[in-house]
Amino acid sequence: MIRCEIISIGDELLIGQTVNTNASWMGSKLSEIGIPVKRVTTISDEREAIIRALDKALAEFELVLVTGGLGPTHDDITKAVVTDYFGTELVYHETIYENLKKRFEARGYKFPESNAGQAWLPKDAEILSNMVGSAQGMLFEKKGRYCVVMPGVPAEMRYLMENSVLPIFAARNIGNVIMHHTWRTTGIPESLLFELLGDISEIEQYGKLAFLPKFSGVDIRLSVYAETVANARKNVQSVERMILNRAGEYVFSTGDTPLEKAIADKLLDKKRTVAVAESCTGGLLGKKLTDIAGSSSWFLGGVIAYSNEQKMKILGVPPELLEKYGAVSSEVAEIMAQNIKKICATDFGISITGIAGPSGGSDEKPVGLVYIGFASPEGVVVKKHIFGRERELNRERSAHAACQLLYEALA
Amino acid sequence: MIRCEIISIGDELLIGQTVNTNASWMGSKLSEIGIPVKRVTTISDEREAIIRALDKALAEFELVLVTGGLGPTHDDITKAVVTDYFGTELVYHETIYENLKKRFEARGYKFPESNAGQAWLPKDAEILSNMVGSAQGMLFEKKGRYCVVMPGVPAEMRYLMENSVLPIFAARNIGNVIMHHTWRTTGIPESLLFELLGDISEIEQYGKLAFLPKFSGVDIRLSVYAETVANARKNVQSVERMILNRAGEYVFSTGDTPLEKAIADKLLDKKRTVAVAESCTGGLLGKKLTDIAGSSSWFLGGVIAYSNEQKMKILGVPPELLEKYGAVSSEVAEIMAQNIKKICATDFGISITGIAGPSGGSDEKPVGLVYIGFASPEGVVVKKHIFGRERELNRERSAHAACQLLYEALA
Repeated sequence: MIRCEIISIGDELLIGQTVNTNASWMGSKLSEIGIPVKRVTTISDEREAIIRALDKALAEFELVLVTGGLGPTHDDITKAVVTDYFGTELVYHETIYENLKKRFEARGYKFPESNAGQAWLPKDAEILSNMVGSAQGMLFEKKGRYCVVMPGVPAEMRYLMENSVLPIFAARNIGNVIMHHTWRTTGIPESLLFELLGDISEIEQYGKLAFLPKFSGVDIRLSVYAETVANARKNVQSVERMILNRAGEYVFSTGDTPLEKAIADKLLDKKRTVAVAESCTGGLLGKKLTDIAGSSSWFLGGVIAYSNEQKMKILGVPPELLEKYGAVSSEVAEIMAQNIKKICATDFGISITGIAGPSGGSDEKPVGLVYIGFASPEGVVVKKHIFGRERELNRERSAHAACQLLYEALA
Repeated sequence: MIRCEIISIGDELLIGQTVNTNASWMGSKLSEIGIPVKRVTTISDEREAIIRALDKALAEFELVLVTGGLGPTHDDITKAVVTDYFGTELVYHETIYENLKKRFEARGYKFPESNAGQAWLPKDAEILSNMVGSAQGMLFEKKGRYCVVMPGVPAEMRYLMENSVLPIFAARNIGNVIMHHTWRTTGIPESLLFELLGDISEIEQYGKLAFLPKFSGVDIRLSVYAETVANARKNVQSVERMILNRAGEYVFSTGDTPLEKAIADKLLDKKRTVAVAESCTGGLLGKKLTDIAGSSSWFLGGVIAYSNEQKMKILGVPPELLEKYGAVSSEVAEIMAQNIKKICATDFGISITGIAGPSGGSDEKPVGLVYIGFASPEGVVVKKHIFGRERELNRERSAHAACQLLYEALA
């Protein structure tokens, strides 16, 4: 069995300037090919720290993936350190130099000589070709253990993982299946859910169970280790029966898919279409729905009516309504949802109007007050929410609540 | 000087189900009080792994912060492991039990007995009170080194950091200032920027310099270590002069602010307004602009014209144009920008029309082809981009390129 450690290099990760999304993306992709990530170590761009981390990782694990510090500037030291560490030397690659030069010239820049260093690569490493950036990947072998070094730029790391690392190590890892399955619950605290599921050891004969509290509720995750995908799937199904029997009323998704994907599937299935009218979310709901590939089959469009003028002019909200009830009101949410449905000739119309903050609140209408309207062939409903004080959270929660309303109507 | 390691515990972090935002938040807060995070280690909820990580951390660093695995369910083992590790035992806290019970009853739930275990806490630890959740924080001391254990739920960890950990260790760390300062550039590749800055050693007499390539361009970060805030600030100012002299034309922000905030400041300053017409980005550009608090002063609204019908109906794109050139064309981008400016009566109108993928591309118009239109009182310009194959990246890059066009027009 191949077990993996990820070493992420970069001060920006340690001081919190950048969140380490690379490690979680890699962890999820490696899981899919049955390689568990046992540790992630994040360190700074320092020779000592890199060597110490490599020593520890290669002593414990069969595969070590290193990202970061391969750029062309003076603070990028990873290539020099690993070249020394594996006792090899840099050699010049003419074709890589020519390709780098072409890439720059195609973008209209003169080729900077400081970039030429990227054509020098360690002699004893297999070079993994990077077609989306200028730093190549490197695969080292030492006493039957492997170390891959990749750039930290997410798009470049992903390219190298998908085109080199995952295919190479999936082929070496036949017969080890890890399957993670998640059931998402809402409306019940973690400890009550735990009690509801009864004897956990009965469930854990099929795999390891974990409880993950989130904003939306508590996710239940099962991790199954098996020799074949079919066996792993059988275990997941056994647990699914138990969970749905014991806590089914709280489960809103039997899988890891985001709510937007569940919505997309239902809309496609029922051949229904949707349009949005957004105020305080400024386009976030449309963005979330169109995150899903193929959304053009069921998402027709929408209006971002951030100002009252646009609410009247494009959405046809009567000025009297705005004057009498204000833009953030049940009445305005209702007409916004109805009118966007009419304008875009869709089956459903969703509206969001609220006060995201930080300013704009009053005693009567505080920051966090949001109305969500939902128009369907059966009529209109409006839901009132009072979220919190943080602008970003209020916008996220509003868009999520709108998706939930749509999902419930489709379920 | 106090140096810190963060140990994040949780399988969900290793398999990529959750991104480790806790570690970056903690890193940034610790930086502010002059405590550098030298390593972040993420491990699974396994006794062996936790003990090994604690051994290594306490051998190297003065402060170790542990998060995760303090919940009430069977997969939460951190408290038991650290209690053993520091050679102490659990004792029962009556007042904590009563408080837990009250918290549940206030939310309308019967108190679940599985939660009662959270009133048992290690005898030799200082208990750090958690007022936003049921797992308390714990502070251990061993041979003059410190270990703090906190829950992994972000809101609870933040509460404990802000109310206990940061005040305690800031008081012990007088005389060590770390200051990070970032200058953000756009429109120049990393290696050319590096060359433009000339002799880096001249800059690095004031602090450590790093180059961070992003979507928006390349960030330059300076890290200064000093004894007083005034000295640190003086060093930042010296470097700022050098950077602005040598590469000032590419710097859009002398600080950490996003491009959208720089745009907001310029629009406010010039009293200009803007509206958007989005196709393939589905609302993302509007979302990005309205991320900025106070955006209602200059962002009036927009249209998400995802389908051709909406482009004609709401945006008034002539059907002949769509037929002759297609929705993804310079001609359609131009009229979309002009018309949204007219409809919303703004100073500027921005349009995006493109093929985000994964499907919808052709030989003539591949996935990644995006036109961005910009209408101002001076006329319209359209920029053609050919991005890559990934839907999410294409959408992000499109929205960013639109912001860049707007920024350049304002600069």
